[in-house]
Amino acid sequence: MPLRELQYPTEPYSRVNRLKDRGVYTLETIHQIVNSCPMLHVSFQPPNSPFPAILPMIGQMGSFSRPSADLGEVLDLYLHGYVSSRIMNLTRTAPSSQAPQEEPELEGMPITVAATHLDGLVLALTPNSHSYNYRSALLFGHAALVTDTAEKLYAMELITNSVVPDRWRHSRVPPNAAEMQSTSVLRVRVSTGSAKIRTGGPHDERGDTEDEALLGRVWTGVVPVHSVMGKPIAGGYNRVGEVPGYLEGWRREANADAEVYAREAVGREVVAKKTVN
Amino acid sequence: MPLRELQYPTEPYSRVNRLKDRGVYTLETIHQIVNSCPMLHVSFQPPNSPFPAILPMIGQMGSFSRPSADLGEVLDLYLHGYVSSRIMNLTRTAPSSQAPQEEPELEGMPITVAATHLDGLVLALTPNSHSYNYRSALLFGHAALVTDTAEKLYAMELITNSVVPDRWRHSRVPPNAAEMQSTSVLRVRVSTGSAKIRTGGPHDERGDTEDEALLGRVWTGVVPVHSVMGKPIAGGYNRVGEVPGYLEGWRREANADAEVYAREAVGREVVAKKTVN
Repeated sequence: MPLRELQYPTEPYSRVNRLKDRGVYTLETIHQIVNSCPMLHVSFQPPNSPFPAILPMIGQMGSFSRPSADLGEVLDLYLHGYVSSRIMNLTRTAPSSQAPQEEPELEGMPITVAATHLDGLVLALTPNSHSYNYRSALLFGHAALVTDTAEKLYAMELITNSVVPDRWRHSRVPPNAAEMQSTSVLRVRVSTGSAKIRTGGPHDERGDTEDEALLGRVWTGVVPVHSVMGKPIAGGYNRVGEVPGYLEGWRREANADAEVYAREAVGREVVAKKTVN
Repeated sequence: MPLRELQYPTEPYSRVNRLKDRGVYTLETIHQIVNSCPMLHVSFQPPNSPFPAILPMIGQMGSFSRPSADLGEVLDLYLHGYVSSRIMNLTRTAPSSQAPQEEPELEGMPITVAATHLDGLVLALTPNSHSYNYRSALLFGHAALVTDTAEKLYAMELITNSVVPDRWRHSRVPPNAAEMQSTSVLRVRVSTGSAKIRTGGPHDERGDTEDEALLGRVWTGVVPVHSVMGKPIAGGYNRVGEVPGYLEGWRREANADAEVYAREAVGREVVAKKTVN
């Protein structure tokens, strides 16, 4: 853990402009939101398309050169995909010569990654004051195909274990040659990132909160929202009688944690990071 | 309801290339996924930014000219935002002259919208065969600010009621002049769209499903995943003793529906739309 919290630089494209006090730039917070998000949305601009592309992908922050690095440190984002898919093809053909030699991290395709958790429906007196409690993170960086076998295996294990902790060593590993061939991994060198977090209850204008008739008529508060993993359902060729402990234990714990976060977020007002520009 | 299911045209940028049998182009299916998604991810390319932008936004399909239109018909997407935010500014200054006169729907800023539901973790024998059950929709279109007051009110009601059905008339409406001023609505004329849906259990290669030792060791199946709305928590200035019926009734029903969908998706194999090109 660094002695001082690391923060991403605020660039014009990454800065939180609207409701600035919800903006957070610390690496640890941003990486935490990304790593706890089961689906990331990855955007890039394909050549010859009038519209940007968005792909839902699975990804995870990590450091191949220093696997013990913690969430508050400088990390790469690893994304999982297929060699045949568009993003992989584009990355493979991206002109790496675009990057100046002194900035090799700018090699690859520019992409933006969003990780978003919905934590609650905030119901206020007026439609305009309605809101969500949420945690939203963005990463901006350059994506390149991982070609080193050891790094690819590191990332595949990292990503598999992000779906279910410890799943990798409880499945048939290592991948065979055909599997290594058909799976691609993208490494994103992160240029910067930002997060936006809302917690707390509803806030209405004074004109409304002083209107007794309105207060007597409109329920105000928060409906906490969280994700739940239901009882596992065995597949057609499953032969293992009981759902294994590493899966059941994690499922129950993750469900409980998610519920607690959503509920406790209601009682917690936004803490503005005063050190942030 | 049209006599024949309407489908979006498949463009090079919208076509599902990988795992084609998961691709769906019917308007009803795509609009259903969008409308049931509490957070959409909206992507666009800001001028002078090296990276595309992604914003989580609230949105809903609708037809101002024919509000009774159903989900299978041609609809617009309405997105909710703030006048001060970047997307609104860009839209306002987007050169509408870019659109040929005979195609006014191409006026505005090109955007891509993603709606994604995670429905289950699919755990297979090998990491490579792991997957998610999911419903993912993309819409491609041009966004323009809604300037007509009646259309803006229509969209604000539509979007508020998408957060909690019937919430609009149970809150303080109509919005006052300041509220109308500070809220912006974007209308997206949809050029095309596509969806990708996975249901069912795990699928492994025969080499693995015939490996008795492996089958005896690795649990395979699906962990259904769905969103839950917890017990509503009253806000600081709430005076309404009981959570109102329209909110409680909907919450319980939506929770039950979400759970049933995730569980039943496991037993349902992908139905390939054979009529799709």
